[in-house]
Amino acid sequence: MADINYKDFDKTGAFERLKKLSAPVLADVLTADRVKSMQAGIDLGNGEALQYNYAAKQVTDDIVDALATLAEEQQLIAKYRELAAGAYMNTGENRRVLHHLTRGQLLSPVVHEGKDLGAFYAEQQQRIADFAEAVHSGTITASDGKPFDTVVQVGIGGSDLGPRALYLALLNYIQASGNGASASGSRGRKAKMAAHFISNVDPDDAAEVLRRIEPARTLFILVSKSGTTQETLTNEALVLSSLASAGVASPKKHIICVTSETSPLAKSEEYLASFFIDDFIGRRYSSTSAVGGAVLSLAFGADAFQDLLDGAHAADRSAMETDIRKNPSLMDAMIGIWERNFQGYPSTAVLPYSQAMSRFPAHLQQMDMESNGKQVNRDAEPVAYPTGPVIFGEPGTNGQHSFYQLLHQGTDIIPLQFIGFVESQDGLDVDFQGSTSQQKLNANLAAQIIAFAKGSPSDNPNKNFPGERPSSLLYAQRLTPRVLGALLAHFENKVMFQGLTWNVNSFDQEGVQLGKVLTKQVLGSGELDGALEAFSQTLGVR
Amino acid sequence: MADINYKDFDKTGAFERLKKLSAPVLADVLTADRVKSMQAGIDLGNGEALQYNYAAKQVTDDIVDALATLAEEQQLIAKYRELAAGAYMNTGENRRVLHHLTRGQLLSPVVHEGKDLGAFYAEQQQRIADFAEAVHSGTITASDGKPFDTVVQVGIGGSDLGPRALYLALLNYIQASGNGASASGSRGRKAKMAAHFISNVDPDDAAEVLRRIEPARTLFILVSKSGTTQETLTNEALVLSSLASAGVASPKKHIICVTSETSPLAKSEEYLASFFIDDFIGRRYSSTSAVGGAVLSLAFGADAFQDLLDGAHAADRSAMETDIRKNPSLMDAMIGIWERNFQGYPSTAVLPYSQAMSRFPAHLQQMDMESNGKQVNRDAEPVAYPTGPVIFGEPGTNGQHSFYQLLHQGTDIIPLQFIGFVESQDGLDVDFQGSTSQQKLNANLAAQIIAFAKGSPSDNPNKNFPGERPSSLLYAQRLTPRVLGALLAHFENKVMFQGLTWNVNSFDQEGVQLGKVLTKQVLGSGELDGALEAFSQTLGVR
Repeated sequence: MADINYKDFDKTGAFERLKKLSAPVLADVLTADRVKSMQAGIDLGNGEALQYNYAAKQVTDDIVDALATLAEEQQLIAKYRELAAGAYMNTGENRRVLHHLTRGQLLSPVVHEGKDLGAFYAEQQQRIADFAEAVHSGTITASDGKPFDTVVQVGIGGSDLGPRALYLALLNYIQASGNGASASGSRGRKAKMAAHFISNVDPDDAAEVLRRIEPARTLFILVSKSGTTQETLTNEALVLSSLASAGVASPKKHIICVTSETSPLAKSEEYLASFFIDDFIGRRYSSTSAVGGAVLSLAFGADAFQDLLDGAHAADRSAMETDIRKNPSLMDAMIGIWERNFQGYPSTAVLPYSQAMSRFPAHLQQMDMESNGKQVNRDAEPVAYPTGPVIFGEPGTNGQHSFYQLLHQGTDIIPLQFIGFVESQDGLDVDFQGSTSQQKLNANLAAQIIAFAKGSPSDNPNKNFPGERPSSLLYAQRLTPRVLGALLAHFENKVMFQGLTWNVNSFDQEGVQLGKVLTKQVLGSGELDGALEAFSQTLGVR
Repeated sequence: MADINYKDFDKTGAFERLKKLSAPVLADVLTADRVKSMQAGIDLGNGEALQYNYAAKQVTDDIVDALATLAEEQQLIAKYRELAAGAYMNTGENRRVLHHLTRGQLLSPVVHEGKDLGAFYAEQQQRIADFAEAVHSGTITASDGKPFDTVVQVGIGGSDLGPRALYLALLNYIQASGNGASASGSRGRKAKMAAHFISNVDPDDAAEVLRRIEPARTLFILVSKSGTTQETLTNEALVLSSLASAGVASPKKHIICVTSETSPLAKSEEYLASFFIDDFIGRRYSSTSAVGGAVLSLAFGADAFQDLLDGAHAADRSAMETDIRKNPSLMDAMIGIWERNFQGYPSTAVLPYSQAMSRFPAHLQQMDMESNGKQVNRDAEPVAYPTGPVIFGEPGTNGQHSFYQLLHQGTDIIPLQFIGFVESQDGLDVDFQGSTSQQKLNANLAAQIIAFAKGSPSDNPNKNFPGERPSSLLYAQRLTPRVLGALLAHFENKVMFQGLTWNVNSFDQEGVQLGKVLTKQVLGSGELDGALEAFSQTLGVR
């Protein structure tokens, strides 16, 4: 392997080459052959696969070759291997970046202060699996000796968005497949435990959840890596008060913690149990650690969560492939660079044709925008090019009846990332007017790809569709835990490759600090900036 | 009043003047005095008010004056009055635009083919109020003679996003205020009926909702203005099948329709009841018509919905004010024009500091992007300037732990629209580390406004906050039905004023048509475009 060196991407030869290349006209080039050939897949084991199709992106073989050269010049695969081997890639905070290890060993073990960290993460997940099994079997019970039947995750940001998106994405699958205890749901099955989430410091968030649950039957998961997150500790206080009001004798025995071993939370013996992560698991990359593992294993069983980890691990392995045409996350990343830096598109829409993925775009919004929304490179020097785009999205077909108007006929071009599945999760369906719901769903998806790419000319400019709106399609047979894990890892690795290309540190978030400092000032008693004091008074603080 | 004439806004004198003006440096100008003076309010009656503060926007008195001149040159208030008086402002479809009339009479009555349309909309709402009262009192019952306790809205786009956002926004308020029947919730109160929503043609959406409800106890609302919406009719088939499976004797007697009087749905006598809208209520503007009125009156009672209408009507009246400094929606609109066309910012984030408003940004995304995502003017000629921006957002403080990193330190500037409330809805709160949750929430909000505006220099570029990120603040004492109605109308009127400035038709959506045509082709049996056939096969259709 060549020596690793870091440089801004406008210093590469490929950058100059890409500046001279022109996008193809999709209406001319997009044929059936192109659809069949411009695709890369990931084998997920168990007969499952995830495919990435980029036929409807505005790239030619020349452009892909130049993007491949850019990836080589920026040593993306070599840097990914360094990262997976335990390099201190989070330069600003001087930390390793090890979320990949939570789903399996990619390279040789990463040993830190004598501890094999892959083994440590696996051990935590095993502890969670045992704990979940004990809760499900009734060995571990609520204060009153009766079983827990509900779990509430209390956390914010990466402790909320990812786990919540994954929970919603699998709820239908688990309930329909009977991969849970049988019970009295209207269609006969249900998850092992119902899950809810409290995140916002707005007290109405906790109030709404606490109204819907029975505290006496509920196990709370307090998730904070540092053990000092303001929102989460405040919500813990609300939860403890609600448990006490409900007559629970030992409120803290209804709480487990997911935190780092050195945090204040970990030091308390009062909680029912604690499970650990460490500083090498970034918040927005923590869904496959105990942060997602506890709530998902309790809700759905540890087996389902293990399937998700296996899917993510398969995607992580596929991302090590050096041939860009066989590496979906690398291809996806580099096409994004083409769109952002050479075509000048400032945002990207993520559009899953699956209601179960309703909150996945919100998770990607954090993962992408918090990782690559940076203006300095990893050596803290200002960069001279645009970095991370705005990410937004809603499920299809809902979005078609909402913001697609602008996507089709607005004055800006927004690149699109579609996600689709051949089968539904639940299987409930009906034939209506000659087709099933699932057929209608996917007919809409295929139609949109072509409508965006090829448009349709009209003499009436109001009915004219200019087309040339690029999109990609990630798809699989069905949204299973394994496929979901692979999708999660696909996007994580895409974001990592883009950050490495831009030469930014995708793993810190200094941009959240100033707000914390000023909030503390407002809540304190010292003198404030005049405008800050005026806004604080306006809002009833101070 | 001068004659009304329509022209592209780059033909105005103010356009040239605005091009020459420079944004102020917020770090220099943002003082307590500015916070106190750059604000306009709306009196909502009942002692309530909504305030719009633009102190942290990058405008000077000169810029506001030029924007006011632009508003005058484009005759925005005069055109709004024309619209409210019943002009055919939806030029492409040759329709009036009358959603304002659903909340009250603004000018003299609009009479169409002998019918007073304001009276017609009011009559429909009175019919809904009577119907809801009969359901709540048990006069109207399910097939088995027992009461309905749950309502499910079946609709998509404007029949889903707005009503759902409003339902979620008021749920806590209604439950906490006891403005509903008392029942067995953990904190003692609940809404009159629980509401759910089915929108997506993805069968998993209906499956998930149908699993959570008891069909025998549920009243469904089928919402489709045309009575032909593919998704909604398909979901009706799923609902009917589920009602039949549950042993409901007359499934259609568990369904009411909200549709136009001429639609196929309206002609059926089989449904329990039908309530009407017409072609002059645009889908994304229909929340205050029967489209939102039925579900919200059933869930919360017609009184709460009437309060919402009153708040919206107050905002509609305030939008007629000709002095921009006294007209919040006009000021908001014109500052948006400044940002989009003169500062070059391509997107806007909507950030409510209230978990109850979690889906309000998704509603605004439709309302704004579908209205003004247009490339031709109202005479169907291409425009030479950017029109509607990308709209996205999530509640604070959650967003702070997600995409705010990019907002603070990314390479692009994203204008921000904050929303805040002095008090929480529920009142449940706890003092923790010297402050309540609500105080922490609002301290964060005030802090973010200043952090974005003023930044904070650092010798370490990684910790440097450049500031100069503009934001506005809409705020009220508490998120009540009246305030929510005013917020809804504020944004509708903002979008209307921007569309009139850009000289586009904000009330059609031709951009949704091509996808429908191609979907029909896929579901048919004729020959397809090769790429469309290949994608269809990939997704298991054809």
